[in-house]
Parts: sequence; structure tokens; C-alpha cells
Amino acid sequence: MKQPFSYISVSDAWERIRNAGISSLGSETVSVSDAYGRILAADIISPVNVPLNDLTHYDGYAIRSHDTQNANLQPVSLKVIGKAYPVKPSEVTIREGEACYITTGSALPPGADTVLAVEMASQIKRDLIQVRTRIEPGEHLIRAGSDIRKGEVVMSAGRILRPQDIILLALLNFETVKVHRRPAVAVISVGDELADKVNTHSILLSRWIELSGGIPIDCGVAPDDVDRIRDRITRALDKADVAITIGGCSMGDKDLVGDAINSAGKPGLVFQGIKIRPGRVSAFGIIMGKPIVMLPGLIHSTIVGFHFLVLPLLQQMRGLPSEGAWNVITAKLAEKIHFRSFIPFKNVTFVRLERRSEGLIAHPMLGDSSFFGIVSKADGFVVAEENKTSVENDETVCVHILPGV
Amino acid sequence: MKQPFSYISVSDAWERIRNAGISSLGSETVSVSDAYGRILAADIISPVNVPLNDLTHYDGYAIRSHDTQNANLQPVSLKVIGKAYPVKPSEVTIREGEACYITTGSALPPGADTVLAVEMASQIKRDLIQVRTRIEPGEHLIRAGSDIRKGEVVMSAGRILRPQDIILLALLNFETVKVHRRPAVAVISVGDELADKVNTHSILLSRWIELSGGIPIDCGVAPDDVDRIRDRITRALDKADVAITIGGCSMGDKDLVGDAINSAGKPGLVFQGIKIRPGRVSAFGIIMGKPIVMLPGLIHSTIVGFHFLVLPLLQQMRGLPSEGAWNVITAKLAEKIHFRSFIPFKNVTFVRLERRSEGLIAHPMLGDSSFFGIVSKADGFVVAEENKTSVENDETVCVHILPGV
Repeated sequence: MKQPFSYISVSDAWERIRNAGISSLGSETVSVSDAYGRILAADIISPVNVPLNDLTHYDGYAIRSHDTQNANLQPVSLKVIGKAYPVKPSEVTIREGEACYITTGSALPPGADTVLAVEMASQIKRDLIQVRTRIEPGEHLIRAGSDIRKGEVVMSAGRILRPQDIILLALLNFETVKVHRRPAVAVISVGDELADKVNTHSILLSRWIELSGGIPIDCGVAPDDVDRIRDRITRALDKADVAITIGGCSMGDKDLVGDAINSAGKPGLVFQGIKIRPGRVSAFGIIMGKPIVMLPGLIHSTIVGFHFLVLPLLQQMRGLPSEGAWNVITAKLAEKIHFRSFIPFKNVTFVRLERRSEGLIAHPMLGDSSFFGIVSKADGFVVAEENKTSVENDETVCVHILPGV
Repeated sequence: MKQPFSYISVSDAWERIRNAGISSLGSETVSVSDAYGRILAADIISPVNVPLNDLTHYDGYAIRSHDTQNANLQPVSLKVIGKAYPVKPSEVTIREGEACYITTGSALPPGADTVLAVEMASQIKRDLIQVRTRIEPGEHLIRAGSDIRKGEVVMSAGRILRPQDIILLALLNFETVKVHRRPAVAVISVGDELADKVNTHSILLSRWIELSGGIPIDCGVAPDDVDRIRDRITRALDKADVAITIGGCSMGDKDLVGDAINSAGKPGLVFQGIKIRPGRVSAFGIIMGKPIVMLPGLIHSTIVGFHFLVLPLLQQMRGLPSEGAWNVITAKLAEKIHFRSFIPFKNVTFVRLERRSEGLIAHPMLGDSSFFGIVSKADGFVVAEENKTSVENDETVCVHILPGV
């Protein structure tokens, strides 16, 4: 018979993972067009002003405001000496008494300091306009650097790059960008019984790992044999940054993953058992300097262990604050939930959410931890604290949303 | 000079799109493993009970409860005639006075109606156990069909398939699934000035189209020429389900997309101009029986037009309710915003969100509609109604979140 586990609280478990000295993955340089969803490893500093020059955001004439200082009293005539377009800037310099026709988005020619709107000018000859109003300096101008200043931090390290960030990087002429490496996550299923089956758990977790910024590596199914499990794990960790096992981690004769980990090197298992149900036999270890998470095989337990141990671990390895691992919202419980009260563990109940005019309602879904139907019908789960033997109808609860599409 | 646009409200615009008689895209059959994020076009009905048989969720002995009815008074001996495992069910039938050793997850052998927990049985010979307690029918059993009943609707049409749904479909032995077709969206940029530049707008919208369940088709840049724009559009619509043009839709001499659409067939433009700023020159038409959305070229305008016309159109074409197109949250405004008050249009202001202990705070970001820096710094935008000339500091506002990672 195995030693009973020394269950620790979920927050202690997470504390031990945080303090396990897992080294950061470091960064890599990728092309900007491949950087969607990646996390910046260094600040981005603009090498240029945007816009580069003063631009007009109106059609009109680039002029010197000084020429119009008495235009209110006596109309002023200006000679049109050129035309400026966004794609074809003028090459003229504006001197006293001169103007340049200019269209929206064009750079202001040298010498000019303001724009006379097209409807404020009367064309009196082909190349002569007249103005009857005093025009202030800087009219209708978008100033150089008014969008982005040269030297400005445009995006800070730690930002998840969205499409709108990617186009700004392209606009600033960045071709590559320094981002945190994505953790490669080996997924190892354990159990003779899985040999010929659809490996549902591995498919689910692999997709969730991808959605959480990791690179899943399906390492297949290991049989219930210590040596072969250890072999599978050590080979997986040669390539991967972290390993996850599914199944074989309870207290039966065929639960051999813990032994395999302990036989693979030091320190081996760091803790075994967390105070949450389902999912209580989840465990965590370090071998070959890399983290390994043992998850139980019943699907609800697998999900709970993954949620509370793997998701924050991935966040940390990606260079993000681990608290951001979960999407938690509040809802009102539709009906009372009772728990078996004799063990002071947190209790997880899957819920389906319903949007009503008064807000979100969480409907508890009870059933065995092996039920896939519940996993598919659920939007998330409610976690009741250790001291609670029930959660009341209408109580406001926190719902952890399951990773989605 | 062109005719001034007859601006219509955003809700009228959407009403006209909804009533434009755009035919549904229909459905297609895809393999379950390719169905992530797709939308179910028909209910999924379970062809089987899950679990298929009554299972034990405890290690013990499958027995007939009737045999133990007097066990409280006088110990009962039962003969162990077989062993049952999850991967290797027993082939025995349990008769009076018989038991079968059974491990967690195994199917209950015929004849048995309950499970005697292993710790409730004393082994008195190799194949003989004794029980001293009356065991009720159905103990430690997971009933056939208690997770999913045969004939039950497991997932309804309209559901977006998550990884947890995909594994359930695999478990139920579905190999293919009927889903709504994804709209193919042609993106056509218009303007001589774009010829040699990074096509930022098209890159951004293409990614957002993908994130919104569409298939973007980059149709490059058309020059400012009616015939060539029309040609580009009609060729694009030969393949695509919907087209989007960017640029060339205002009232200048080089704004020719409207003319191109009207020359391409009936009905052509359905409306031109919506009462929102930026984005007011956005327009919508139908040619070749397919929808086409004209978006303005200044990036803020492009985004607003895309958000209010294209996103709900894509939702509708995907078989989803169009109201679900936007992710809207509430926040408090950090500082007052003033609007030019002389036109009763909705006013859009980009905002950056900050999470404080008291809730979300929206910081307005003012600047020209061409500013990419604002787009990258912003988390979303606030929409002020037509009658408002300002939004006050501390006012609660709705923030439309920009599509993300």
C-alpha cells in the first residue's frame, strides 16, 4: 500500500511551483508577420516621428501665415507655384507672396507654416488666388510626431501582440521583434486501457495548451509500467520545456507515474495531492531541471488539475503574471449545491451559464467525474471554499470559465 | 461635384443590410478534427447511451442485492466466479450466491444489480467472500445513460464548437459534422498612393476577419480608375461571398468606388453614408447577389465602418445572431470628451482601459483619424449618441472592445 498523500492547499501548491526555481524560457526573435499573439520581450521604441513631417488634413493651399496678417483689411493675392499630393510631394519652397496647392495627407512644403482651406480662397487667375481672412499659423495641420514621437515607447515588454500592434510595427519598418519563447508542452497519457481509444484527454489539453500560448507535443500513451513511463517522460523532456502526464497518479496498484518521476532524478515529486475535489491527486515535480505536472485521469479531475496547476505555470513561463491565467466572472447560483462535508477541501461544481435580464445565472451540473457530457454542456465551474458544506440558491459565486474556441 | 450623401443612422443601416435578402451560405460537412470554432448547422443527437452499460465507480464485487437481505442478522458467503476490468469485461452471469470481482470503471456483469465495496467484504477463501451488511440495489453504480441518454440532443444547432465539444463528438464516434460555411471575404484596397506601401489596413482587417470566423482573401490594390476597380470587385465576387473595399469612398474626384459598384450591376449601392464619426462615408451595396461594404481609408474610419457594418454581417452569414458581433463592456470615463456639435451624428472616441480597484476606467485618446499609434494603444472605443455634445468625466460608458489576439 502506498503512503497516503499529504494534501496541500491550492494556494500553497501554487506557491511551491512559483518557488521551484523554474528558469525563464528566454526570448527569441521572430518576423513581425509571425508575431500575432506573441508576448513582447522588450520595449518597442519608435525610431521616427509619425507623421514624419507636418501634413495637411484638408485640401487647400500651403502658405505663410504672415502674408495674411492684414487680409481682413485688404485682400491678399498669392501666386500658386506648385502642387503637393500625398504620393508626390512638391519640391517647391514657399516664399513671401507664394502658395502651393496641397491635398489631404500631403506634407507641408518648406517655408509654409499653415494651410488655407480651399473654400477660403478665390481663384482669380490660373496661378493666382486671393484671400480675405487672416490665417493663423498651424491651421489644418497634423504636426510631425503628433501620432508617435521619435524615441517614444510605443509598446511595452509583456504586451500580447494584437493585429493592430503588428501593423504599427510594420509601419515603423520593424522587420523582426523580440518575443518570449513559447513553452513546448509534452502531453503523456498513461494507462493500458487507453491503447485503442480516442485519446480525448490529450486532444482537449493539447488544444487548450495552444490557446494558452504553448506548443503541445503529443507523446502518446505509456503503458502501466514504471520503466516505460519514466522512459517516456525523460525522452519527452529532452525536447519539451514542461511535461504533463494524464492518469496513473492515484493510489492504486497501477498508479505508477509518481514512482516513475521519483526514479527519474532529483528532486522528483515536489508535492502530491491538492485540497480540491475533483482533482485532489494532482501532483507536481521537477526532473532534469524541468517542471512536470501529474494530472488524474477522470476528465473532471484532469480539467481541474490543468486549470489550477498548468495554466498559471504556462503564464509564468511565457513571461506573464500568473494571476492572469484564469477568466473568472461572477454569477448567481440557480440552485443549492451540497458537498460531502467530512473533508475540508475546496469543491468544484461545473455550471452552465444563462444570461437573464437580472444578470448571469449559474446552473450546477451534478454527475460523476468521468462525465464528458457535463464538460461539453458546461461553460465553467464554481469553486466553493474549504469550510463550506453547501452553496445556497441565489448566492453570488465566482465562475472560472473553461478555455473556449 | 458629387451628390451629397444621405446619411442614415447606424441602426437603419443595419436594418437595410438585414433586409437586403442576402442568402444564407448554407452548410458543409467537415471532419470532426477540423471543426474547432465552426458553428453547428444541425442538432447533434446521441446515437448511444453514455455510459453504454451500468458501471461501477468503486473497486469491489458485483453481486445480487437480494442475496444480502438478511446479512445484518447472519453473515452471507458469496462465491467469486470472475473478475471484471474496464478494458476486459467479465463474461460471467451472476446467479444467486455468486459475486464477481470488479474494478472502478468496469461494466456490471449481467445478473448483478449492485456493488459491494471491497472494504465491506471479508475474503474467507481464495474464491469466497463474506458480507455482514445488507447492500441496497444500485450501490456504487454509474447508470447506463446517466451522462448522456440515447436520443438526447447533446449540442444544438448554432453552437460554436469548442475543444470540449470536439472530444465529445469523437467519443460518440462521429467522424464528420455539419457546420455553417465560413464566409469568404474579399479585401480590396483602392488608391494609387498605396502601390508601394505596407498594406496595413488590409493586413489588419484580414486578421480580424479570420478571428470573426471568415476566410479573408487579399485582392491587392486597385488604382483610382472606375473600370479597374469594378473589374477587381467583380472578379473577387466570382469567388468570394462578400467583398470589402478600403478607401476611395469619400466625395473627392478620386473617390470612385461608389461609381464602380453602381456600374457593376443592380441594385448597386443600397445606402451611402452612416451617421457616425469617424466612419461616416461607409456604404453598402449588392452586386451579383452578393454584399459589398465600402469602408473609408483613414484607419479610425476603416475600423468604425468594419465594426458596425462588416462584423454583424459576418455573424449573420455564419448563422449566428448579429447582436453577438460586438464585445461591449462598461467603464467610467477618466476625463470629459467634447464633440463638434453642429452635426447630430454618433461620435466614436478610442479609449485605453485601466483596471482600478473601483472598476474599469476608460482614458480617451484624441487625435487625427489617421493615427495608428492610437489604434495600437487603444483597447476599444466609446460611442456617444447623436444628441450628445460631450461625455462627462466619471460618466459610465459602453466600451466596444477591439478584436484581439
